[in-house]
Amino acid sequence: MKSIVQEFKVPFTYGVYFTEGLFHLDNPLLVDLIKRQNSPGPHKVLVVLDEGVAQAHPQLVGQLAAYTAHHAAAISAVNPPVLVPGGEAAKNDPALLGRVLGAINDFGVCRHSYVVAIGGGAVLDMVGFAAATAHRGIRLIRVPTTVLSQNDSGVGVKNSMNAFGKKNFLGTFAPPFAVLNDSGFLLTLEDRDWRGGIAEAVKVALIKDASFYFQIKQNARRLAAREMEPMQDLIFRCAEMHVAHIGGGDPFEFGSSRPLDFGHWAAHKLEQMTDYKLRHGEAVAIGIALDVMYSKLAGMLSEKECNDILSLLCELGFDLYIPALSQSLETSAGKLHILQGLEEFREHLGGQLTIMLLQKIGVGVEVHHLNETLIAEAVDQLRKWQPSSLVGVTA
Amino acid sequence: MKSIVQEFKVPFTYGVYFTEGLFHLDNPLLVDLIKRQNSPGPHKVLVVLDEGVAQAHPQLVGQLAAYTAHHAAAISAVNPPVLVPGGEAAKNDPALLGRVLGAINDFGVCRHSYVVAIGGGAVLDMVGFAAATAHRGIRLIRVPTTVLSQNDSGVGVKNSMNAFGKKNFLGTFAPPFAVLNDSGFLLTLEDRDWRGGIAEAVKVALIKDASFYFQIKQNARRLAAREMEPMQDLIFRCAEMHVAHIGGGDPFEFGSSRPLDFGHWAAHKLEQMTDYKLRHGEAVAIGIALDVMYSKLAGMLSEKECNDILSLLCELGFDLYIPALSQSLETSAGKLHILQGLEEFREHLGGQLTIMLLQKIGVGVEVHHLNETLIAEAVDQLRKWQPSSLVGVTA
Repeated sequence: MKSIVQEFKVPFTYGVYFTEGLFHLDNPLLVDLIKRQNSPGPHKVLVVLDEGVAQAHPQLVGQLAAYTAHHAAAISAVNPPVLVPGGEAAKNDPALLGRVLGAINDFGVCRHSYVVAIGGGAVLDMVGFAAATAHRGIRLIRVPTTVLSQNDSGVGVKNSMNAFGKKNFLGTFAPPFAVLNDSGFLLTLEDRDWRGGIAEAVKVALIKDASFYFQIKQNARRLAAREMEPMQDLIFRCAEMHVAHIGGGDPFEFGSSRPLDFGHWAAHKLEQMTDYKLRHGEAVAIGIALDVMYSKLAGMLSEKECNDILSLLCELGFDLYIPALSQSLETSAGKLHILQGLEEFREHLGGQLTIMLLQKIGVGVEVHHLNETLIAEAVDQLRKWQPSSLVGVTA
Repeated sequence: MKSIVQEFKVPFTYGVYFTEGLFHLDNPLLVDLIKRQNSPGPHKVLVVLDEGVAQAHPQLVGQLAAYTAHHAAAISAVNPPVLVPGGEAAKNDPALLGRVLGAINDFGVCRHSYVVAIGGGAVLDMVGFAAATAHRGIRLIRVPTTVLSQNDSGVGVKNSMNAFGKKNFLGTFAPPFAVLNDSGFLLTLEDRDWRGGIAEAVKVALIKDASFYFQIKQNARRLAAREMEPMQDLIFRCAEMHVAHIGGGDPFEFGSSRPLDFGHWAAHKLEQMTDYKLRHGEAVAIGIALDVMYSKLAGMLSEKECNDILSLLCELGFDLYIPALSQSLETSAGKLHILQGLEEFREHLGGQLTIMLLQKIGVGVEVHHLNETLIAEAVDQLRKWQPSSLVGVTA
């Protein structure tokens, strides 16, 4: 039998930049990135803006117009930007995706032009999916505006839409052209969104870096009090760890393992069960708490470390239990609804179920099976759990 | 300013296999590929089948059921397969895409499961887009059933849907898991589809390999008479050249150059202008003829070679002119409608317009500008052109 073997490697590179006043006239970061092309400008830039960000920063639309006018030799932009609602709802609505694709078509945005997406993680996911599939991929510059998107989702290589009631059912792996993190956007965040992204930092610290965990713990009160300096440190270190993990491992997830999804199997299901009223970071905090409690019950993690972690999450302001955790399936009384999340998680990644649990702070361990009785017990213990001033682990 | 640099390479590999009787019980090709996984079977396989292929091969659905039943330890398949209409219409209809995505969801097809797409290039493009975006990418096994898909579109790394009246507006770069070329499917092709794929072989020969061109020329009568042996040789060599070009160059098309799209700027536009009644291979033959004539008028290609190429296309059975070529834009009388195809081609690839023309048989040359008056003259000369027995170039 004749055959032909195809084999190649595709190189990807992008930068994650930390700045303030991204759209001030004297901040050259964005325009310099765009000018880095071989071909002469002006280069087309389509800006898609999260409505919530536009409301919180009423000067932003005018600033964008002034910035692009000032740099007219390099940038030809649609003004005003395309506005889309933010939050997870953005990922449920195919009409929004169509609106962004329509703007790409109307404005003649080509593969070497730019889509600049400004918003929280959900808007970046949705706009990213449009940019990745129009003309088989237009350059995407992400401007994440929440803690979660600046330190986690926005610095990675994925985009997505929800479909069939499943989070991220649709999507692609598509590295961005660049990620521009402006800490100014964090000032106007609701407390929920300031806090939410901290859960992803706790997550990556727990499975990979005990010293980062103890740094978060040391700064917990300042973080909860919305101090910017420890937050900037947290975002940088968390983004750095995510970037290193993705680039150093299996960026397009050909395997079945996804260590960075510690705590996420339950989190994704809880988001969907609560109609996305629970936000991703809040759900991840609960998912971490559940898998930490499970790790303790399974004899993998000490009770002392388990309590230390749950206490930290409380101190940061997270709820560790919501009634949805205890909800039974309508079709199968007594069986927890969240258990569906395990199979959905397996199905999304493919192959064998692979779940990250915790051995000790800073050291994760993968397992291929979770015990349903133990999950139910973990839910029950979480419901009853109270922080105690007696426990505490130090570095 | 702080920043983090992300950099990685993603490796891809797949085989293109040539076989007969792919679904005969004693043909192990497909089941062996599926069994190559680490995890134990059975592995889920969702088959999506071109309705035209099912009609032309009434035994096929039963054969598929027998094959998967015979290999039940390795394969768990949905029976009967999901049927979808073939032809370019498949790529215009989002509802069809939704049907395939719905089947992926209903059957719980995960990233390590398989979608087997059986059909012509359009069905492979549409099903490929569904497989590439569900769960961010499910393994796709292509079973191309036309000459064009076996020697060109089906062996590459792209998928697509049409949108906004533009061919391939949506799509991704997503290498398949494997490509299985069964020559048995060619026996029942309409003459148009047998012939159509030969245009892509002429194209790749013209820009890269004069000896392949003269081989096609030597076999022209046998090819036109539907002899299988020269067709199998043509498909293998053409597929081999496409695979080598993609893997050796810029597989995900980060640049603006796409040499394999010789003749395609006009072809894509003609397909759309004729509501896809003109099939891709037929349109490519006209597009080649136009760019060959243009190359002659621009003084790049000798008249003798120009006539030789046009004569070969005629001998293979292609029309070299259709009235749509001469059609004016409604909005701008006197300006040819096909000229819109140039900007659409540039916009799709991005960056600077880059068009492949011909210097001599086997040697293409890229230019960044086409002269509109010369295009109009090329159209006019093509309209009047007649094959002459006096011309002829030999190897």
